[in-house]
Amino acid sequence: MATKPFAIVAGVGPGTGASIARKFTQAYSVVVLARNPSNYNSVVNEINSSGGQALGISADVSDSASVKTAFEKIAQQHKDTPLAAAVFNSGGGFVRKPFLELTEEEFANGFKSQGIGAFNFAKSTLPLLQKATGLQYPPTLIFTGATASVKGSANFSAFASGKFALRALAQSLAREFGPKGVHVSHVIIDGVIDIPRTKEWANEHPDGKLDPDAIADAYWHLHTQPRTTFGFELDLRPYVEKW
Amino acid sequence: MATKPFAIVAGVGPGTGASIARKFTQAYSVVVLARNPSNYNSVVNEINSSGGQALGISADVSDSASVKTAFEKIAQQHKDTPLAAAVFNSGGGFVRKPFLELTEEEFANGFKSQGIGAFNFAKSTLPLLQKATGLQYPPTLIFTGATASVKGSANFSAFASGKFALRALAQSLAREFGPKGVHVSHVIIDGVIDIPRTKEWANEHPDGKLDPDAIADAYWHLHTQPRTTFGFELDLRPYVEKW
Amino acid sequence: MATKPFAIVAGVGPGTGASIARKFTQAYSVVVLARNPSNYNSVVNEINSSGGQALGISADVSDSASVKTAFEKIAQQHKDTPLAAAVFNSGGGFVRKPFLELTEEEFANGFKSQGIGAFNFAKSTLPLLQKATGLQYPPTLIFTGATASVKGSANFSAFASGKFALRALAQSLAREFGPKGVHVSHVIIDGVIDIPRTKEWANEHPDGKLDPDAIADAYWHLHTQPRTTFGFELDLRPYVEKW
Amino acid sequence: MATKPFAIVAGVGPGTGASIARKFTQAYSVVVLARNPSNYNSVVNEINSSGGQALGISADVSDSASVKTAFEKIAQQHKDTPLAAAVFNSGGGFVRKPFLELTEEEFANGFKSQGIGAFNFAKSTLPLLQKATGLQYPPTLIFTGATASVKGSANFSAFASGKFALRALAQSLAREFGPKGVHVSHVIIDGVIDIPRTKEWANEHPDGKLDPDAIADAYWHLHTQPRTTFGFELDLRPYVEKW
Repeated sequence: MATKPFAIVAGVGPGTGASIARKFTQAYSVVVLARNPSNYNSVVNEINSSGGQALGISADVSDSASVKTAFEKIAQQHKDTPLAAAVFNSGGGFVRKPFLELTEEEFANGFKSQGIGAFNFAKSTLPLLQKATGLQYPPTLIFTGATASVKGSANFSAFASGKFALRALAQSLAREFGPKGVHVSHVIIDGVIDIPRTKEWANEHPDGKLDPDAIADAYWHLHTQPRTTFGFELDLRPYVEKW
Repeated sequence: MATKPFAIVAGVGPGTGASIARKFTQAYSVVVLARNPSNYNSVVNEINSSGGQALGISADVSDSASVKTAFEKIAQQHKDTPLAAAVFNSGGGFVRKPFLELTEEEFANGFKSQGIGAFNFAKSTLPLLQKATGLQYPPTLIFTGATASVKGSANFSAFASGKFALRALAQSLAREFGPKGVHVSHVIIDGVIDIPRTKEWANEHPDGKLDPDAIADAYWHLHTQPRTTFGFELDLRPYVEKW
Repeated sequence: MATKPFAIVAGVGPGTGASIARKFTQAYSVVVLARNPSNYNSVVNEINSSGGQALGISADVSDSASVKTAFEKIAQQHKDTPLAAAVFNSGGGFVRKPFLELTEEEFANGFKSQGIGAFNFAKSTLPLLQKATGLQYPPTLIFTGATASVKGSANFSAFASGKFALRALAQSLAREFGPKGVHVSHVIIDGVIDIPRTKEWANEHPDGKLDPDAIADAYWHLHTQPRTTFGFELDLRPYVEKW
Repeated sequence: MATKPFAIVAGVGPGTGASIARKFTQAYSVVVLARNPSNYNSVVNEINSSGGQALGISADVSDSASVKTAFEKIAQQHKDTPLAAAVFNSGGGFVRKPFLELTEEEFANGFKSQGIGAFNFAKSTLPLLQKATGLQYPPTLIFTGATASVKGSANFSAFASGKFALRALAQSLAREFGPKGVHVSHVIIDGVIDIPRTKEWANEHPDGKLDPDAIADAYWHLHTQPRTTFGFELDLRPYVEKW
């Protein structure tokens, strides 16, 4: 099977996740996780047919049993290869509603998708990252944040609670695993990402949406930082974004 | 039954919650919630025997069915009296452990106690606060935060995730319900509180722990602010605290 | 001469400063500082004619010689009375301009008014606060901040630089002098204050501007906190404010 | 003279500034500014003798007359070449002292070095960055921050006031000039940098100091971001740093 180091990207659709997979496949074989294979089939095929190595596994990272099954498959495929990087990019949990109309399930889903999902992913990847040897760059765990990671807006309490919780987790892990040599980062995506679903969203400015390939470049840059110089948090937004 | 406005305090033990109940009972009748009656019996008796009005209800705010039952009792007792203030002061969800030893249940419990608990409490109190009339001060909803509300430390990911989520909720609600006239605040308690359980904790400095009565004074001050001048966030710590 | 403790308020005009002076005069004699006596004459007369004690001194707190002269006068008037509280509320340094049109003098003036002004005021008041005895509440030094204390907006670089610097100073002093028993606080005023100058500013909402008397109540509350429970930072805004 | 785009680095000594100059010289000719030529002579010679183009100019960026003279020289040398990037990396203004021992001059020097220095540098470079054409990457202005940019510690009020002010300026400029296509960033250097002066500083951990070359890589990465995806703030620290 694969002999070069590998990376895992959780939350791969047509946008940021696919771009990160493509970017990291230039150095590593890549495992991509998504609930629905239709989300990753296209990028997996594209990578494999252009000389890279990609494996798609269907998994719901907010469900620990599903994560366990997925990482058993990963262990089989990558038993002798080190894990170089893991990226938590799962979406889900987003709902925009007046608070009094929000159900407990909708509110909890923000945390389930972002908090529990990230917990499960970190629990499964940190042991692999810690034991990885022979890597060119320090093993890296990156979490994707959002505007809602640092601001709780009206009607956004469910998603903001999930994203705030994810940021708390990222900070805690950076402080615990940094000294152990694992680079933990948190990237705040502050704006609309330019993906098929948002193509028709009105934007008065050219280039007014975040480019997923440029986001992937930032993740790659963070990954390549030596342990002398770990970046923890970076906020990315289009030049015209109000903030 | 009661004719003066009432206040609800969720999370009443021997410390902050009891002090808040005592403070608010000077103007209101008070309902206190805790899972275990042994937590509130003492302060309820003390208030009632000294001329105030207090009612203890056993409830687990992280359990929506339990909250529903509690608020049905509250509705019976206070059907014609306005709710002047509600304070979410529930503890729970605290665990300090290396991340890889943390179970999913322990991690989720931080959010369940702080996030879901606060969600249930806000869902039940905001409609009452919004419809309250004849109050001297704007109706008020205050959440108790902690150091872990703004900093995710090593080994604290569960509690920090819960407290970050709670802060996200508080911000969202302040932005949504402030313009509707409900004052939503978040108080960051940064230090050890001086309660029986912490009496013997070493502290090299006199007065080195937070006084729950002084915390209660701060909550009362926030409650008395007019809508022209709502305070959202206040951090409280002993004079010798490192921060 | 004065026998009760005294307070000093720097930056007294028709708004927050005058309200703070009025509030603190209920317990203390008050010294108010402003560049122009026309700014404080009215409140000084009002306090003195209603049974309080107020002394106005003309001083430019951004000018150390002027501050020195003012504190010599204060020392004469209050040689045997302890300083209970000092409030830095100086305005000045505000300019709103595209960056490339901003002169160095305009930019520096933000820091001169807010940074140097606060430095001079702290240098003169902290020794008095530290040696004060017989006070009911811990000696207190409060700085007035603004939206620009935590956000650098387009066209606001001069004022934001001054207000950020002031907040840095407040944090530094809280960490240095808190353990010595002096309570240092920073209040963020986030919104338009309701004063004569802003009366005609359009505001679609009733009560949409900050009430200076309510601001003063918050300062007084901070001052009364015991050293077990020092509040450092509080943000105040009208209920309808966007933030 | 030079035909490829150029970059300007203000504040070049044996550490970060020299590394940034070396990094950017791979694509650009570089102008380095420092008060004392002995600070930049070595890196200028090194770059020029290895095929790059570097020009050292003696300037004190906190002195507008000195900056004016320097930029007249720059204009002569680069009249037909676009300015691709400008980095403000000036040190100075650091002092660690109990507040009551701090002179006004020492306090003001923090702002003079960091605030006025950055103001002068931004005033001189932004017009050049705005008019630059034919660049591969958006024109970029990066400011170097520090731990003291976000935390005012005891005995650090002078430096923290300067660094807070610098961050306010950076935020203001990012919000004003981002929409005009200029990328403005702020990098928080949180830790000791590994330079000759700090070589002997005790550090119990290998690789426990920031590598200036890795810092330079981060600056270069920020510079290469497209306008769809501008990073504003990145914090860098050694893996073992407490934060």
